[in-house]
Amino acid sequence: MSRVPLSPTPRSTINRNRKRAATDRAALDALLDAALVCHLGIVVDGSPVVLPTGFGRDGDVLYLHGSTGARSLRLAERGADVCVTVTMLDGVVYARSVFHHSVNYRSAVVHGRARAVTDEAGKRHGLRVLTEHLAPGSWGHARRPDRRELAATAVLALDLTEASVKIRTGPPADDEADVAAGTAWAGVLPLRRSWGEPEPCRLLPAGTPVPDHVRGRPALG
Amino acid sequence: MSRVPLSPTPRSTINRNRKRAATDRAALDALLDAALVCHLGIVVDGSPVVLPTGFGRDGDVLYLHGSTGARSLRLAERGADVCVTVTMLDGVVYARSVFHHSVNYRSAVVHGRARAVTDEAGKRHGLRVLTEHLAPGSWGHARRPDRRELAATAVLALDLTEASVKIRTGPPADDEADVAAGTAWAGVLPLRRSWGEPEPCRLLPAGTPVPDHVRGRPALG
Repeated sequence: MSRVPLSPTPRSTINRNRKRAATDRAALDALLDAALVCHLGIVVDGSPVVLPTGFGRDGDVLYLHGSTGARSLRLAERGADVCVTVTMLDGVVYARSVFHHSVNYRSAVVHGRARAVTDEAGKRHGLRVLTEHLAPGSWGHARRPDRRELAATAVLALDLTEASVKIRTGPPADDEADVAAGTAWAGVLPLRRSWGEPEPCRLLPAGTPVPDHVRGRPALG
Repeated sequence: MSRVPLSPTPRSTINRNRKRAATDRAALDALLDAALVCHLGIVVDGSPVVLPTGFGRDGDVLYLHGSTGARSLRLAERGADVCVTVTMLDGVVYARSVFHHSVNYRSAVVHGRARAVTDEAGKRHGLRVLTEHLAPGSWGHARRPDRRELAATAVLALDLTEASVKIRTGPPADDEADVAAGTAWAGVLPLRRSWGEPEPCRLLPAGTPVPDHVRGRPALG
């Protein structure tokens, strides 16, 4: 896993709330590895379009995928600028004033131009990364893509060269006068994510056990 | 609460996976009321920028806010096209084939041009909607914004006239041959969200009780 520092450019440099900007590459990797959905932004006919999509990271490359029929994916494949944003909400920050209410969160913003992965070996590699991010263990457990399925799937690769990370943690930052007044509660209500009980497909033979890679899946970070 | 149908336009019409498109306005409202963070897309110098931000809904209006120092907010205030996307991940769909792996999710995409709310009464109303969405009960509990704080906060309003909702639920959609082969487990691993134990600010007087609107907050839908 790479530990090179982020390389800020004007558009990836965080101008506000610098204390929330984490410039450590490790923070970027950790967030990208913890979240399952990203929001892909692209300009279509001059207007922004933001769509949720799956992704996966391999070193310095972010893989994205989708149906070859999606217009935004086709534009991205052709080298349009994209913005990929990943956000994890960690809690609600209750302050003594409405103004200082906030959220604890981790957010990464990656800018760049994606490239279409079109050779079969590269596509298989990208799909493996995407699959093992979405469902660790599934690449070795489920049937792998055949040529028809490979052809129907667009795989994009985006280098992690222009990125920023913003993290807020900890208690509210209240004004001293509000703390002294002592009229309101203040603190953090943490948001937890956990996996529920696996719901087996009804078409499975009776008694099929839930495999360990599903039942024992660690909680999202 | 409004129950008018969504009004699809070419860019808000879902062309792929129509079965996942929910055209009921109630589905849009329910999702917008369940999620705490949206992703705001805007075109800056010709490139897409996607940032997480808070929001709140009042009838047919979506309110967004942020610091008046944020460039993307300033562009949105001036009438640039925006795209606001809200996504809730509900589970991972494990299929018998890698190809049919998926996620259960709800996603709303709203297109439009936002307007800056600048009059004091309108701004207070928007902030109340935003606050009660982020932290129900806080508008009545915490100190409300003074004029200086109002001035430092940008409130945007976006009409919910051009929107689409996409929802995936249920088991994997496997190929018959894979079901018959019976070699892989298939089903859904649901993702749950819950609130953790409230973490009171250390500056509170000892013994300050956690108010009901925090301790009894319902789980995110």
